[in-house]
Amino acid sequence: MKVVRNPAELTQWAETQRSAGKRIGFVPTMGFLHEGHLSLMRLLRPQVDQLIVSIYVNPLQFGPSEDLETYPSDMDGDSRLCEQTGVDVLFAPADLYPDGFCTSVSVHTLTNGLCGASRPGHFEGVATVVARLIGLSRCHIAAFGEKDYQQLCVLRRMARDLALPVEIVGGAIVRDQDGLALSSRNTYLSAEDRVRALSLSQALRAMKKGLEAGETAVGALLATGVHVLDVDTVDYLEIVDAFTLEPVQCVTRSCRALVAAHVGGTRLIDNLALEP
Amino acid sequence: MKVVRNPAELTQWAETQRSAGKRIGFVPTMGFLHEGHLSLMRLLRPQVDQLIVSIYVNPLQFGPSEDLETYPSDMDGDSRLCEQTGVDVLFAPADLYPDGFCTSVSVHTLTNGLCGASRPGHFEGVATVVARLIGLSRCHIAAFGEKDYQQLCVLRRMARDLALPVEIVGGAIVRDQDGLALSSRNTYLSAEDRVRALSLSQALRAMKKGLEAGETAVGALLATGVHVLDVDTVDYLEIVDAFTLEPVQCVTRSCRALVAAHVGGTRLIDNLALEP
Repeated sequence: MKVVRNPAELTQWAETQRSAGKRIGFVPTMGFLHEGHLSLMRLLRPQVDQLIVSIYVNPLQFGPSEDLETYPSDMDGDSRLCEQTGVDVLFAPADLYPDGFCTSVSVHTLTNGLCGASRPGHFEGVATVVARLIGLSRCHIAAFGEKDYQQLCVLRRMARDLALPVEIVGGAIVRDQDGLALSSRNTYLSAEDRVRALSLSQALRAMKKGLEAGETAVGALLATGVHVLDVDTVDYLEIVDAFTLEPVQCVTRSCRALVAAHVGGTRLIDNLALEP
Repeated sequence: MKVVRNPAELTQWAETQRSAGKRIGFVPTMGFLHEGHLSLMRLLRPQVDQLIVSIYVNPLQFGPSEDLETYPSDMDGDSRLCEQTGVDVLFAPADLYPDGFCTSVSVHTLTNGLCGASRPGHFEGVATVVARLIGLSRCHIAAFGEKDYQQLCVLRRMARDLALPVEIVGGAIVRDQDGLALSSRNTYLSAEDRVRALSLSQALRAMKKGLEAGETAVGALLATGVHVLDVDTVDYLEIVDAFTLEPVQCVTRSCRALVAAHVGGTRLIDNLALEP
């Protein structure tokens, strides 16, 4: 596995690969890799000739009161996992942005609600870094986890709107056996908080069960979910159209149930598909 | 010459060309073509296998009080000129943006002054449309006129910051024999106003002459230029660093003199390189 630290070097390498007719896959991450990240690498591995994984904790997507400074990292462990998973290039830049960097990409509408409402600037930071990473990596296909469902929708829309020469694919959420969606931030949870954190996925499953039992009214389904949540504060619990992310009254087309909540100082998110 | 009206069709054609190893050049325009546009086509023609020209009057880059509705057009004449100049594909979409389009690209810092100050949202509209057009056309190289000097700087910065797989090149300003920089908007000028409009290029040349005579102080050079201007209102007359577009006190490195002014209701711009 090749380790690249310089953005220009990554592009030069990728251009050479492209000229040789190689198909390039890309999984951008912020490191502290878990099975969720590895599942994205395994998803792309058979579809591409060259697989790039990036590790970069992007300051642009953190708010002033968020955990940029304390975001967990383990470069040695990450490097080992990438190598074991068949990654060709690990891109781990110290500086990603050139001097005088002053461009930003915004995806409106889709970012008004959900995490966009409580994390101003977050998705602009995400869209900007991903646009630059896709450009630098010259990738044909890039994979993102459904765990960050709104992010996936935002990046798909960005790629379509700017006609970026890349296919964006989503990977299913990977969960621990007890149902907790894997997240690098789970490392912040105390043993007690980890138990309470399970209530997020339990609430989503309760809502899905309600739907399967015949309840299609969103108000009733949300009441079921709220009842299950055992958290400090609920940021949001919503059922929205799976594509536009707009609120719905009734689950009569593909929808998504999404939750964000604070447990012991840690902000957690989860989501689940709801099909009528 | 092939005429393409559908964005997806353009991309499909361009992908096929790329797969065949062809190099693609691109000149985006708003139509009503003149020698300035044609010079950009001639600049790229020998460098590429396939030359695309787009004609699209982009609503995103017009302010509410600007001339979107009256912007001149001549599709038949434009089409003939493109064909005569060896264009392979004329891309003239009726609708450029897909349903639900909601992405925007902003280049900050560089757009604070000059035209950015008096045309809020203009450069965001330009950066957004050009990002999409570059994406759709899959071009290797794209050319823009130095007549819109700030725009050229903005697009170069955008392409660098987002690592777009394209080279941005600038083409020298094309002038009428009397010095007036060619612009589609010159068609708005009455015979009398056209004479007064000459004072823009004359002011810039007077400043350059002053520099050549040994005056390097920007204050003195600007006073020389202002004295020459015969317009209704001056939007700005400035000397800035040629790369950062930041104001300078003294012309001791590559600079650019830029002017924007209203003549008989028409807003005109012009600029000139100032080398120490």
